[in-house]
Amino acid sequence: MKEEIRELLLAVERHEMTVDDAMLKLREEPFVDIGFANVDLHRKIRQGQAEVIYGAGKTAEQIEGIIRVMAEHGQNRVLVTRLDAEKAAQIKSDEPFVYYEQARIGLTGGMPEPDGIGTIVVATGGTSDIPVAEEAAVVAESYGNKVIRLYDVGVAGLHRLLKHTDELMQASVVIAIAGMEGALASVIGGLVDCPVIAVPTSVGYGAAFGGVTALLSMLNSCASGVSVVNIDNGFGAGYLASMINHKSPAVRP
Amino acid sequence: MKEEIRELLLAVERHEMTVDDAMLKLREEPFVDIGFANVDLHRKIRQGQAEVIYGAGKTAEQIEGIIRVMAEHGQNRVLVTRLDAEKAAQIKSDEPFVYYEQARIGLTGGMPEPDGIGTIVVATGGTSDIPVAEEAAVVAESYGNKVIRLYDVGVAGLHRLLKHTDELMQASVVIAIAGMEGALASVIGGLVDCPVIAVPTSVGYGAAFGGVTALLSMLNSCASGVSVVNIDNGFGAGYLASMINHKSPAVRP
Amino acid sequence: MKEEIRELLLAVERHEMTVDDAMLKLREEPFVDIGFANVDLHRKIRQGQAEVIYGAGKTAEQIEGIIRVMAEHGQNRVLVTRLDAEKAAQIKSDEPFVYYEQARIGLTGGMPEPDGIGTIVVATGGTSDIPVAEEAAVVAESYGNKVIRLYDVGVAGLHRLLKHTDELMQASVVIAIAGMEGALASVIGGLVDCPVIAVPTSVGYGAAFGGVTALLSMLNSCASGVSVVNIDNGFGAGYLASMINHKSPAVRP
Amino acid sequence: MKEEIRELLLAVERHEMTVDDAMLKLREEPFVDIGFANVDLHRKIRQGQAEVIYGAGKTAEQIEGIIRVMAEHGQNRVLVTRLDAEKAAQIKSDEPFVYYEQARIGLTGGMPEPDGIGTIVVATGGTSDIPVAEEAAVVAESYGNKVIRLYDVGVAGLHRLLKHTDELMQASVVIAIAGMEGALASVIGGLVDCPVIAVPTSVGYGAAFGGVTALLSMLNSCASGVSVVNIDNGFGAGYLASMINHKSPAVRP
Amino acid sequence: MKEEIRELLLAVERHEMTVDDAMLKLREEPFVDIGFANVDLHRKIRQGQAEVIYGAGKTAEQIEGIIRVMAEHGQNRVLVTRLDAEKAAQIKSDEPFVYYEQARIGLTGGMPEPDGIGTIVVATGGTSDIPVAEEAAVVAESYGNKVIRLYDVGVAGLHRLLKHTDELMQASVVIAIAGMEGALASVIGGLVDCPVIAVPTSVGYGAAFGGVTALLSMLNSCASGVSVVNIDNGFGAGYLASMINHKSPAVRP
Amino acid sequence: MKEEIRELLLAVERHEMTVDDAMLKLREEPFVDIGFANVDLHRKIRQGQAEVIYGAGKTAEQIEGIIRVMAEHGQNRVLVTRLDAEKAAQIKSDEPFVYYEQARIGLTGGMPEPDGIGTIVVATGGTSDIPVAEEAAVVAESYGNKVIRLYDVGVAGLHRLLKHTDELMQASVVIAIAGMEGALASVIGGLVDCPVIAVPTSVGYGAAFGGVTALLSMLNSCASGVSVVNIDNGFGAGYLASMINHKSPAVRP
Amino acid sequence: MKEEIRELLLAVERHEMTVDDAMLKLREEPFVDIGFANVDLHRKIRQGQAEVIYGAGKTAEQIEGIIRVMAEHGQNRVLVTRLDAEKAAQIKSDEPFVYYEQARIGLTGGMPEPDGIGTIVVATGGTSDIPVAEEAAVVAESYGNKVIRLYDVGVAGLHRLLKHTDELMQASVVIAIAGMEGALASVIGGLVDCPVIAVPTSVGYGAAFGGVTALLSMLNSCASGVSVVNIDNGFGAGYLASMINHKSPAVRP
Amino acid sequence: MKEEIRELLLAVERHEMTVDDAMLKLREEPFVDIGFANVDLHRKIRQGQAEVIYGAGKTAEQIEGIIRVMAEHGQNRVLVTRLDAEKAAQIKSDEPFVYYEQARIGLTGGMPEPDGIGTIVVATGGTSDIPVAEEAAVVAESYGNKVIRLYDVGVAGLHRLLKHTDELMQASVVIAIAGMEGALASVIGGLVDCPVIAVPTSVGYGAAFGGVTALLSMLNSCASGVSVVNIDNGFGAGYLASMINHKSPAVRP
Repeated sequence: MKEEIRELLLAVERHEMTVDDAMLKLREEPFVDIGFANVDLHRKIRQGQAEVIYGAGKTAEQIEGIIRVMAEHGQNRVLVTRLDAEKAAQIKSDEPFVYYEQARIGLTGGMPEPDGIGTIVVATGGTSDIPVAEEAAVVAESYGNKVIRLYDVGVAGLHRLLKHTDELMQASVVIAIAGMEGALASVIGGLVDCPVIAVPTSVGYGAAFGGVTALLSMLNSCASGVSVVNIDNGFGAGYLASMINHKSPAVRP
Repeated sequence: MKEEIRELLLAVERHEMTVDDAMLKLREEPFVDIGFANVDLHRKIRQGQAEVIYGAGKTAEQIEGIIRVMAEHGQNRVLVTRLDAEKAAQIKSDEPFVYYEQARIGLTGGMPEPDGIGTIVVATGGTSDIPVAEEAAVVAESYGNKVIRLYDVGVAGLHRLLKHTDELMQASVVIAIAGMEGALASVIGGLVDCPVIAVPTSVGYGAAFGGVTALLSMLNSCASGVSVVNIDNGFGAGYLASMINHKSPAVRP
Repeated sequence: MKEEIRELLLAVERHEMTVDDAMLKLREEPFVDIGFANVDLHRKIRQGQAEVIYGAGKTAEQIEGIIRVMAEHGQNRVLVTRLDAEKAAQIKSDEPFVYYEQARIGLTGGMPEPDGIGTIVVATGGTSDIPVAEEAAVVAESYGNKVIRLYDVGVAGLHRLLKHTDELMQASVVIAIAGMEGALASVIGGLVDCPVIAVPTSVGYGAAFGGVTALLSMLNSCASGVSVVNIDNGFGAGYLASMINHKSPAVRP
Repeated sequence: MKEEIRELLLAVERHEMTVDDAMLKLREEPFVDIGFANVDLHRKIRQGQAEVIYGAGKTAEQIEGIIRVMAEHGQNRVLVTRLDAEKAAQIKSDEPFVYYEQARIGLTGGMPEPDGIGTIVVATGGTSDIPVAEEAAVVAESYGNKVIRLYDVGVAGLHRLLKHTDELMQASVVIAIAGMEGALASVIGGLVDCPVIAVPTSVGYGAAFGGVTALLSMLNSCASGVSVVNIDNGFGAGYLASMINHKSPAVRP
Repeated sequence: MKEEIRELLLAVERHEMTVDDAMLKLREEPFVDIGFANVDLHRKIRQGQAEVIYGAGKTAEQIEGIIRVMAEHGQNRVLVTRLDAEKAAQIKSDEPFVYYEQARIGLTGGMPEPDGIGTIVVATGGTSDIPVAEEAAVVAESYGNKVIRLYDVGVAGLHRLLKHTDELMQASVVIAIAGMEGALASVIGGLVDCPVIAVPTSVGYGAAFGGVTALLSMLNSCASGVSVVNIDNGFGAGYLASMINHKSPAVRP
Repeated sequence: MKEEIRELLLAVERHEMTVDDAMLKLREEPFVDIGFANVDLHRKIRQGQAEVIYGAGKTAEQIEGIIRVMAEHGQNRVLVTRLDAEKAAQIKSDEPFVYYEQARIGLTGGMPEPDGIGTIVVATGGTSDIPVAEEAAVVAESYGNKVIRLYDVGVAGLHRLLKHTDELMQASVVIAIAGMEGALASVIGGLVDCPVIAVPTSVGYGAAFGGVTALLSMLNSCASGVSVVNIDNGFGAGYLASMINHKSPAVRP
Repeated sequence: MKEEIRELLLAVERHEMTVDDAMLKLREEPFVDIGFANVDLHRKIRQGQAEVIYGAGKTAEQIEGIIRVMAEHGQNRVLVTRLDAEKAAQIKSDEPFVYYEQARIGLTGGMPEPDGIGTIVVATGGTSDIPVAEEAAVVAESYGNKVIRLYDVGVAGLHRLLKHTDELMQASVVIAIAGMEGALASVIGGLVDCPVIAVPTSVGYGAAFGGVTALLSMLNSCASGVSVVNIDNGFGAGYLASMINHKSPAVRP
Repeated sequence: MKEEIRELLLAVERHEMTVDDAMLKLREEPFVDIGFANVDLHRKIRQGQAEVIYGAGKTAEQIEGIIRVMAEHGQNRVLVTRLDAEKAAQIKSDEPFVYYEQARIGLTGGMPEPDGIGTIVVATGGTSDIPVAEEAAVVAESYGNKVIRLYDVGVAGLHRLLKHTDELMQASVVIAIAGMEGALASVIGGLVDCPVIAVPTSVGYGAAFGGVTALLSMLNSCASGVSVVNIDNGFGAGYLASMINHKSPAVRP
C-alpha cells in the first residue's frame, strides 16, 4: 500500500498526475486502500481466510458460483463449512470437490501438506461430540496442520484419557471438545503445558442447556492455559489452533 | 402410636372412657399422633436430626436455651451449625461445648464412636472449599461416621487426586466439593463405584456466578452415581452421607 | 492387577522376561492397567455399568453388534436405554430381547432376582412423569432391586401420598420424580428417614422452563437427605438408588 | 362526578356560566375529574389505600408531615410500611403512633374492628419468613380483617401443618409465605378450597437465588386456586387478601 | 368423617366391634378418611374441581371413558381442557358434548346459571391473547359466573380500555391477560378496586421470551391488588376468579 | 375535540339540547372523545400508523377484508408486515398490491415520495441480517423516507464499513442491524453524530441465544446516541427512524 | 480534511515538500486525520460531547485538571456526571461550578439558551426514579434543550399521567423513566406520536431484578416509536433526546 | 520417569531388589511418579507455573513463608497475584520484592529478559479496564515477554484504535480487554491475523451484568481467531499469551 501511495505522490511531483486526479484516486480507492488493504490482503494470501464459505443457507448453485469466482482469482483451495450431504452431492466443480461427511465440510484444491510447528490434538469427551471435532480437525488439516484425533476420552473413564498422555504432552495445541459438564478441558489443561482451546458442545439434555453448562464450566477452568470459543464452534477452534501452530513472526514483513 | 390408639380403644371398650372423650382425645392430639408421630419420633431417636440448631440468626442466649431444653429431654448431643466464633465463645453449657472453627459448628455431648458400615471420604478441589468440607465432615462425624479428608485435590493437578485412589476406592460414600468448574465430581465419579454426593461451592469469580457453574456442571456429570445438593450445603451432604453409610433396613422395626 | 504386575516382576526376576520387554509390556497396557484397571473391571463385573448402551443416535444394527460383542465377552445382560419402540422391534439377538415401552428400555439376559438390602420406592407427582419413573424403575430392577411404584401422588392431593406412608417409611431409598413445582421431593423428604433421590422432569409449561423450576425447587428442599440428579435423568436415579441399596463395603476386596 | 358535570351543564343552561368558563373549568379540572376521580376517591374512602406511606427512603420529618396533612384531610388511620425501628422512634404525632417491629409497620388511628366476611390465615414455611408474614398480617388487620397466624409449618415436617387443618379449611383466604423451595403454597393449595396468595421470600441461600426459586415454584403450583405476588411482598398479599375478604359488590354504587 | 369415627367408637363401646377390628378399620381407610376426606369431598361437591379433565395427551377413547365413569358417580358436568378440535369431534357421550373451539374446551352437562356475587371481566391486551382469555372465560362460566369479555384493549391505545371504565369499575374480579410487556395488568390494577388476576401469555417475540417478560412485569406491578398465575394459564385464572366471586364463608359447615 | 365539546355546550346554552341529552352524549362517546380522540386521529392522519396490518396469523381473506374497509375510509396506502410469499400471492385488491419478498411486506397505494429532512441509512453486520433490514427499509420508505442500504459491513472486516463513512456521516438516522456480538451499533455510534437505532437479530448460534447477546451488547454500547429495539424488530426501527427524520414540531397545531 | 490533503498534494506538486516528507506526514498524522478527524472535531464543536467527564472514580483534583485543560482549549462548558456532593464541594475552578445534586452533575460555563426544535418531556413512574430523570434533564438542558419534568405519573394512578396529555402531545421527544414493571413507556408511547426514549431504572425489589424487568418490558412495548437505553442511563437518554431535538441536516457541511 | 522404572526392573533382574520391595516401591510412589511427575516437573522448570501464589485470602506471613520455601527449592522468581497494597507493604523477603500496584502483583527475583518469539499487545476499551490489563501485562512480562500496552482504545472512538494498526499488525498475540459491550475483541480480531485472547471485564452497569454481556459478546465474535477467558481474568490471559508467544515444540524432549 505504501508503495502505491508513494507512486501517486511521485506522479504528482513529476506532474504526471494532477492534484485533483490524485485526490479523486485517493477517495475512489476503497478506504481500506489507505492503510488497511494490505492487512486484509496479507491475510487472504497467507492464511486463506477468504477461501471459507459458510454453506448453511446457500444453494448448491450459489456455492458453485463462489468457488468458480475464487478459482478465477487464483484461490484454488476453498473450504465450504456447514454443508449437508445432499447439497454437497449437487456441487459440481472443475477441480475435485471432496466432502467430509462427519465434518460437514467440502473442500476443493486438496489437502495441503502439514507445515505447522507441531501437532494439533483434537480430543472429545464422547462420541456425540465427534461432528464438532471433525469440523475442527478438517479445518486445521486444510490450513496445513497435522492432527491427532483422540475421541471418546471423557473424564468419567479417566484411564481412556490417560492412555494418551504422550500424544497430549507432545502437542502444540490441544482442542478439547465436550458437552454435558465440560470437565475434559480442565483435566487436559492440568496435564499439558500448551494452549488448550475448549469447545463446549450442545450435547446433553436437561440442565446441559444446549451447551451453556459446558461453556460456563470451561470458562471457569481451574487449569491455566485454557481459553474458550462459542458452543459447537469447531471451525473457530480449528482456525485458531492453526494460527497458534503456525506462529512465526520472524517471517512477517 | 399404634399402642396409644389401642389403649384408647380398649379404654372405650372397658367403658373407662366415654366416646366423646375419645373423640376429643383423638382430635386434640397433634395430627402427627395419628400415624405420623412415630415417623417423627423414630427419626429423632435414631438419627438425632432434632439435635441440629441452625445457629445463624440466633443469639447466644437463644442457643443456650435450646441446648438446655434439649438436655432436659434427654438430647445431650446437640449440633449448632452456621455458628460464628464470636457467638460460640459466649455460649455456656453444663456439658462441654466444643467449637469447630473451620466448620463453623459447635457440639455438645462429644463426638460419638463411628458405627457406620464404611468410611466417608470428603474431597475438595481447592483450599477455599475447606469450610464447606469441614461442615460436611464434622456433621458426618457427629452422626457416627469415620471421615477421611482429601483436600485440594482438584483436577488441574490430577496426580494429587490419583495418589489417593486407594482411599477413594474403599469409601462407602464420597462427598466431592468444588467451586469454579466443579469437575472434581465427574472425575471422582469415574474412579469409584460408590455414591458420590457433589457439593458445588460459591468459590470462584466472574462466570462462576456464585456457584451456579459448579452446580450445573455437577448436575450434568457424565459419571453415573453422582447426585447434587445445594451450593455450599455442607450440612446436607454430611447428613445424607451418614444416612447412606448407616443403611441397614434389617434392623428397622 | 497387582497380581499381573507381580507376575511380570517375577518373570523379570526369573530372567524369563527381559527388562526391555517388561518396559514395553508396562507401557503397552492401557494406562488403567497400572493401578486403575481393577477399578474399572471390578466395576464392570459387579455392577454391570458396561452393559448399558445409550440407544439414542444408534441404529438397530449398531445396537445388535454391541450386544453380540458383549455376549462374546460374557456380558449376557445388556440394558439399552432411550430406545424407541420402532427401533426396538428391529433388534434381533440370540437371547430374548425384552422391550419395556414406557421406560424406553430394552433388556437381554432377563431380569435378575432382587438382592438389595431393601426396597426402592419410585414415586411421581403426576401421570406425565411416568416415563421417567419407569426408566428409573426398570434400571433399578435390572440391577437387582425390588421396586415399589407409587405414581400420581403429587402434593396437590396430599391424601393420595399419605395413604402410602407405610411403603415410604420402609423404603431403603426413595426416588421422587416430579415436574412443575417439584414439591414432592420435599414432602417425601419430610416423611422418611432414608435417602431421597429427586428427579426433576420437564413436565409443565410456561414458567416450568422445561424442568428448571422443579430442579431449583428440589435443590432447595428444606428436608434433609434429599439430593438431585439432572432433569429427566431416570437412568441416573435408578443406578444411584441401586448403589445405595446394595451398599456392603464388608464384601469389598 | 356525574353530579358536578350536571351542575356545570345546568349552570350553562341557566346562563349562570359562560361556555368559555365551562370549557376552562372542564380543562382545568384534573383529568381524573371527568370520569376517574370518583373511582379514585371511592377507593380512598372505602379501602384507605391512600393512607399507606412507603417509609423506606423518607425521613422521620417527611413522614410526620405526610401524616399531619392526611389528618387535616380526615385521614386518621395511616399505615407506614418498610419503616425501621430507629426512624419509628423519632416520629411524633398527635394521635398515638404504634410501631409493629417485626412487620416494620407504623400505624396511627388504631386497629379497626374486623369487618370482613371470614378470616385470613397467614402461614409461613419457616421462622425466617416471619417478617414478611407480619407485614402481610398487620396490613390485613389494619384494613379490618381477622388474621390467624400459622408460622413455621413448612412441608419438611408435614404434621406441623396438618395439625392446623381446621383453621386452614375455614379460612376465607390463605396467604402462604415461604422461601427456599416454596412448596408450602402447593401443599396448602391442595388442602383448602379458598384462594391462596403465595408470597415467595428471599430466605435461603445458593440456588434459592434470593427468592427466585420459590417464586417459580409457586407459579407452577399443581394446585388450583393459587396466585403469586412479588418476592417478599407482604404488603401486596395483605392488601389483596383484604380485598377478597371484603368482597361484596352488592353494596357498590 | 367425624361421624364415621364416632360410629366406630360407639361400636367398640357397645362391643359390636372388637378393638382389633377397629384398629384394622382405622388403618385400612385411606389416610384421607381420618380428617381429610371431607375436605376433599366437600371440594368435589361444591366446586366440581374433580370434573376437570386435562385433555392434552389423552385419546378420545380415554376421555370418553372418564366422562362415563364420572357420570356413573353423578358428575354430569365435566370440563375437558386443552382439547383440540379434531379430538373433540371424535368424542361421543350420552349427554351433549359442547366444544368451545377458541377456548379448546369441551363440556358436558351444559352451562350452569351464574350464581356468583358479581361479574368477572376478562380483558386482553391483543387479539392473539384471545385463546388464553377464552379458556379463562369458559372455565369461569362453567363454574357459574357471569363473564364480560373486553378483548384487544391493550395500553398502546389507551382509549380502547378507558371506554370500558364502567364495566371494569363494577367487576367483582378482573382477569388481565397480556403478552409482550404485560402492562395491561398494571393499568387495570390502577383503575379498579377489586382483585386483578394477571395472566402473562407467550404472545410476542424476541425479548418477550415466551411470556417471561410479561410474567416479570406483572409480578412487579406498581398497582396493589394484582396477583399472577403461570404463563398462558387461563384455566387457573378462571378457576381462581370463580373462587373469589363465590366467596361466602357463612354457608360453610 | 374541543370544538365538539364547545358545540355541545353552546347547544345547551341555546336550549337546543337538554342537560340530560348532553350528559348522555358525553357518556356515550367513547372515552377517547373527551380529550383523547384528537391524539389518535391526528396520528392516523399524519403518520398512517393505522394502515399497518400485522400479517402473521391472519388469512389472505382477512387481510383483503381489512384493506377493503380501510380503502372505504380513505386509507389507500396499507402496509402488511410479516406476510409470507404464499399468502401474499392470494391477496386480491382493487389497487395494485406490491409484495417485497425479503422484507415480507405487502403494500397497496404505492411508495410515497420521500419527504423527510434527510436520509436513513440501514446497515447490517452480515447477509443473514438482511430480512430484518429490508423490513426496516421498506417500512421507512413507505412512510416517506429516502433509505440508503449498507449491507454486510460487519466489524470483522472494518474496511467494508469505513468505505461508507460519507453515507454514514450524512445520515439523519442510522439503523444498525446485527446478530452475534452486535458490535456494529457501537462502531457506527462512534463514527456518526446522529441517532443510531440498534436492532439485534436472532442471527447466530450457541451463546448468541437467539439475539440476546446482541441485544445486551447494544444496550451497553459505549457510544452515546444509541438506543435499542426488540430482537428482529425491523418494523419498529423503520417506524421510529421515520419519526425522527420527519421531526418538525413547528408545523404542529 | 480534504483541504489538508489537497494542500499536501499541492506542496508536493510545487516541489515545496518532498515525497518522503509527504509520506511521513501522512503516516504521522493520527489515523483520524485521514478522513476521520473532521468527524470527531465536528462533533466536539457542534455537540460538545468532549466536554463530558465521567466523574465516578476520579478525584476532585483530576476533575479540576481536566476542566482547566479543556478551558485552555476553549471548552468552557464542561459537564461532570456521576459526581457526588462531597467531591463536588471540593472542586475549584475559575468559572462558576454549579452542582445539581439530584442529577449528580456539575457544570461549568452556565446553562445555554435552548435552541432545539421543540421541548423534551422527562416523565417518571415514581419518585424514586427522579435521580435518573434529573440526570437526563440536566444533560438535555446543558446541550441546549427546553425540558418539561413530569414526575411520579406512574400508570397505577393513570389520571396523574392523563392530566398532562397536552405537554406530552406537544413534545418533540419524551424520555419515559420507570422501574418495577416499566409500563410507563408503553402507555406514553400509545399517547404521543413523537419518539419515546425509555429508561429502565433499578428501582424495585424481588423480581424487579435491578431493572431487568423494566428493561425487558420496555423492549417489548406494544407501542411503536419506543426505543430503550441501558438501566439507569439518564445521561444517554438526555444526550440522544438532544440529538433528536436538534436534528437539522440542512445545516451540515 | 521411564528411567526410574527401568532402574527398578534392572534391580529386580539383578536380584538387588525383591519382587515385594519392587511392588511396594511402585505403590508407594505418588501416582504422579509413574508417568505424570515429569509432566508436572517439566512444567515447573520450564514455565514456572509453580511460582504463582494467589495472594487473596493469604496473610503477609503466609506469603512470606511460601516465598521462603520456594527460594529454598531454587525458585527465586515468585509472582504473587491479587495482592493488595497494604499487604504487599508488610511482606519482607531476602530478595527485593517489587509491587506493581495497578496490577496488584508482587514479584521477587526481578523481571526476566523477554525471550518470546514476538510481542504481546495488551489493549483495553477504557481506562477502567486497566487493572485487569496490568495484571495480564505484568504476568506476561514476568514470564519473559515483551508487552506493548494500548489502553483506552475502545470502539466508540475508532480512530484511537486505528492509530495503532502497526503495533497490532506486528503482534504475536493480542489480549483484548473490555467491559460494557466488549466490541473491542471483534474489531481487533478483524484487523490482525494472530490469536486474540479476549478478556471481558466487570466494568459497566445495568445490563452489563458484571461482565456477562462482554463475555457473551466476545464468545460470539464474528472475527475468527478470537477465544475467551473468564471475566476479569487478567492472569489467565497473560499466562496463555506467554504460552503462545513461546511456542517451540522442537525443543521439547
